[in-house]
Amino acid sequence: MAPQEFFVRERVRRLVESRRFQQAITVVILFNAATLGIETSAEAVARYGTELHVADHIALYVFVAEILAKIYVYRWRFVRDPWNVFDFVIVGFSFLPTAGGLSVLRALRVLRALRLISVVPSLRRVVSALLTAIPGMSSIVVLLGLVLYVAAVMGTKLYGAAAPEYFGDLPTSLYTLFQVMTGDGWSDINRELMRTHPSSWIYFVVFVLICTFVVLNLFIAVVVSAMEEEARDDRATLTELAALREEIRSLRESLGERVHSGPSMPVPPAHDRRLLDSAHAASDGR
Amino acid sequence: MAPQEFFVRERVRRLVESRRFQQAITVVILFNAATLGIETSAEAVARYGTELHVADHIALYVFVAEILAKIYVYRWRFVRDPWNVFDFVIVGFSFLPTAGGLSVLRALRVLRALRLISVVPSLRRVVSALLTAIPGMSSIVVLLGLVLYVAAVMGTKLYGAAAPEYFGDLPTSLYTLFQVMTGDGWSDINRELMRTHPSSWIYFVVFVLICTFVVLNLFIAVVVSAMEEEARDDRATLTELAALREEIRSLRESLGERVHSGPSMPVPPAHDRRLLDSAHAASDGR
Amino acid sequence: MAPQEFFVRERVRRLVESRRFQQAITVVILFNAATLGIETSAEAVARYGTELHVADHIALYVFVAEILAKIYVYRWRFVRDPWNVFDFVIVGFSFLPTAGGLSVLRALRVLRALRLISVVPSLRRVVSALLTAIPGMSSIVVLLGLVLYVAAVMGTKLYGAAAPEYFGDLPTSLYTLFQVMTGDGWSDINRELMRTHPSSWIYFVVFVLICTFVVLNLFIAVVVSAMEEEARDDRATLTELAALREEIRSLRESLGERVHSGPSMPVPPAHDRRLLDSAHAASDGR
Amino acid sequence: MAPQEFFVRERVRRLVESRRFQQAITVVILFNAATLGIETSAEAVARYGTELHVADHIALYVFVAEILAKIYVYRWRFVRDPWNVFDFVIVGFSFLPTAGGLSVLRALRVLRALRLISVVPSLRRVVSALLTAIPGMSSIVVLLGLVLYVAAVMGTKLYGAAAPEYFGDLPTSLYTLFQVMTGDGWSDINRELMRTHPSSWIYFVVFVLICTFVVLNLFIAVVVSAMEEEARDDRATLTELAALREEIRSLRESLGERVHSGPSMPVPPAHDRRLLDSAHAASDGR
Repeated sequence: MAPQEFFVRERVRRLVESRRFQQAITVVILFNAATLGIETSAEAVARYGTELHVADHIALYVFVAEILAKIYVYRWRFVRDPWNVFDFVIVGFSFLPTAGGLSVLRALRVLRALRLISVVPSLRRVVSALLTAIPGMSSIVVLLGLVLYVAAVMGTKLYGAAAPEYFGDLPTSLYTLFQVMTGDGWSDINRELMRTHPSSWIYFVVFVLICTFVVLNLFIAVVVSAMEEEARDDRATLTELAALREEIRSLRESLGERVHSGPSMPVPPAHDRRLLDSAHAASDGR
Repeated sequence: MAPQEFFVRERVRRLVESRRFQQAITVVILFNAATLGIETSAEAVARYGTELHVADHIALYVFVAEILAKIYVYRWRFVRDPWNVFDFVIVGFSFLPTAGGLSVLRALRVLRALRLISVVPSLRRVVSALLTAIPGMSSIVVLLGLVLYVAAVMGTKLYGAAAPEYFGDLPTSLYTLFQVMTGDGWSDINRELMRTHPSSWIYFVVFVLICTFVVLNLFIAVVVSAMEEEARDDRATLTELAALREEIRSLRESLGERVHSGPSMPVPPAHDRRLLDSAHAASDGR
Repeated sequence: MAPQEFFVRERVRRLVESRRFQQAITVVILFNAATLGIETSAEAVARYGTELHVADHIALYVFVAEILAKIYVYRWRFVRDPWNVFDFVIVGFSFLPTAGGLSVLRALRVLRALRLISVVPSLRRVVSALLTAIPGMSSIVVLLGLVLYVAAVMGTKLYGAAAPEYFGDLPTSLYTLFQVMTGDGWSDINRELMRTHPSSWIYFVVFVLICTFVVLNLFIAVVVSAMEEEARDDRATLTELAALREEIRSLRESLGERVHSGPSMPVPPAHDRRLLDSAHAASDGR
Repeated sequence: MAPQEFFVRERVRRLVESRRFQQAITVVILFNAATLGIETSAEAVARYGTELHVADHIALYVFVAEILAKIYVYRWRFVRDPWNVFDFVIVGFSFLPTAGGLSVLRALRVLRALRLISVVPSLRRVVSALLTAIPGMSSIVVLLGLVLYVAAVMGTKLYGAAAPEYFGDLPTSLYTLFQVMTGDGWSDINRELMRTHPSSWIYFVVFVLICTFVVLNLFIAVVVSAMEEEARDDRATLTELAALREEIRSLRESLGERVHSGPSMPVPPAHDRRLLDSAHAASDGR
């Protein structure tokens, strides 16, 4: 690498990592989020359509320039930071072809506002904390998925014919059971079913009880993992205690040593730990 | 037992307990769960009905063979492991007569997918943890059942005539109150009742308050039992502290011993523990 | 008191406090709960009306006899045990005049099933634990009541004319807000109101946010009070630590004592605690 | 300041801070809350309109007098206590012009009942505790707001045309999503949307999952901050342990000192800490 190029990269790196640069990007993100919000109003689009379009494109170009600068500075280390990948993917959405009536992709442009998470450190920390809670939940989530799947297959077989809008096919049943799991309007569904299947309440009550119990334990898993840092204090106490004990043992060893080496101390060598302990036990019983 | 038979059993045992065997069973379970899911689609059954039927039966035979192998290996110890019993019962469902229009029993076949819990260790651990939380909840569950029963009897007597679809008889009332307990649509029921019984809100408000409070305490019982392992750390600290104290006492005993045995130490024998303590107390007061 | 009477009382006391007696009462309670449940079925009353009536009266007389026996044994100390008062009040309900169409009082007879709580020790413990959690919640409950009252007065004034069925007068508003607080169907009420009062969503969103926050803190208060017994472990650790420190101080005092009294120890009297500490600090810095 | 004026101020201060004065204010607040509640009944206003009006004004004048007395006593320090500012603002509402049909401002008069919080110490403490929990929640609340905003913009773009009453414009979408977040009736909205947009369930399920997860973590943040005072115990234990260790070190130093200074102790100077430790390690291995 030419030293001149190195010099340029270093300057760009300093710029990209500067506090001021990040604040500027934050402002652009907020501004872009606002324009995307205003764009939802048909009236505003009719009046200021061109201005909004231009503003949106300027913001997009700023983001692209920022990402290119970062790639230029960090090269392949760019992909190491998951937040860079997050920014890259979100900005990338805007370059997917949206001409063919894919309003969904156009709507995804507003995900750019989520870039706020990657530039504001406190939000970044919160999201990181949320993500670290996920691995501890994976087993329970798999269990919940299994329960949902089994209940959905059973529901489709039992009530598919009677209530096709709720249990018509497997995906519909899965959605219905997800709704029941969130506790929203499950009784209406059941009361409708009970007209043809008077025992359907067993199905719902068992499902609600199992789900509530498993979801509760999912919550507890998150709470307990959140409290693990509190528990770290306890472990520090145990470590400190062990060190203290070591100290006392060494103190007693030093005492014993002196006993052996000092000529004026006629303590017999048998005066070992066990004896002391029994002596102590005896003295305790006084 | 002939040594040859012993040899065969040993080989079967090794096969059954091997990691590869368990992975194969896991694959069969997942495959069977998928075919049972596909079977819910009338279209798929119309096209691939025979294939699905055959696949289902193959999976079933694999499970039966697995269970027979385990019984052959472990003999009566087979029933000791509750997960074996779980597998046995779930596979057994498939052999109950389903000819007589018992669509429920046919639907129960999908419970086989739950066998995933018994073969995947992490799921097994999660479910075991969930089950251990249950005994600690039993008293509160009984209390909740009692509250439900009393409220259901009262509801049936008071509102049975006015709202038969909600409080017509005891089972209907129990179901309605279970629904109220999950917080779903209780206000609609009450507003309907209040037309004829203007004071029915007292019944509902009191029931909702008591249930919320008891259920909250049920949740707390689960949380607290989940945190008991955190508390174990504290108990470890206490044990460690007790050991430390023992050590120090024995250290002092050894010091006192030396005082007695050493001729150059004119400390009087009365220089016992109590005296030291009082001396210390005096020195504290300085 | 005549010694004979004392003898009788003592025998009755032993009977009343015997395990067998309490088990018999438990059976009567369960039996009575069952008959009261069966009585809710019009069909059963038509067939076995007299039998049910007799069974109910027998159970009632057993309860009355039990309470009279307890009053005879404990005299005025009877009212000291709140569970006795609980039993007395619940059984007393059955003697209120029910002739005048007061179906409510008849329905209250089923409260006798709650006597199960006072005779089964584990239920008794659970309910006691629930009740001890209440004082810690009182301030937050008062705060919640205040928020409800203020919101109800405001709701009545603002929306009383527009939605009389929800905010017609103060009690109706209080009930509606209680319903909103339990999270049931608040959006329906609001969507109806927003037709005439487009800004009513502010009222509801603010109320929902404040209530959720206060109720959350109410829950936390219960959780924290439930975990106080865990915290007791910590306090035990601190007490143990203090004792340990005492022990070590006294050990050092004894060492100092020997230094003073022993002629072969030329340690100067100035060799006091502070000096030792500074020496230690120096040695630490090595 | 003239000594006479000082004397007067001192007397007023004592009066304002006296327990009896605060009790009197509490009574006036409760009385005023009651009259404001009674005012919601059109019938009561028709009969006792004048009396209620007079009572309300008397209470208001008492509050004004109280605030003026406090300002007189504390001068500019009055605004230091946030509770004084709270009282000032709430009483101030009553002097805003209400003539122009601003029924909202008239309704805000009932906020005066909230003054109960500032005069009853236990309520004051509870509210202070609630407020201290807020800063710890700010990051998650901002995150939740961001998620709501992004989802609302997307919802408006995707479903604005199909369901104008739910996603017509940005504020409507925000309100709808707040409702979904509280778990009330989201399935009805979705089932309506799915008629025209069969994939809308993805939008709702993803939103519900993310919101539940973030709100759950918001709750945990509050719980953990509430338990920090429990954790303080642990820290006290660590401090105590450190002190204990110091004590033991100093004890050993004193022992070492004696070894050096005492002529009858032929322990070599090399008998330092490290040697003792190794000796101890050796003795451990026995």
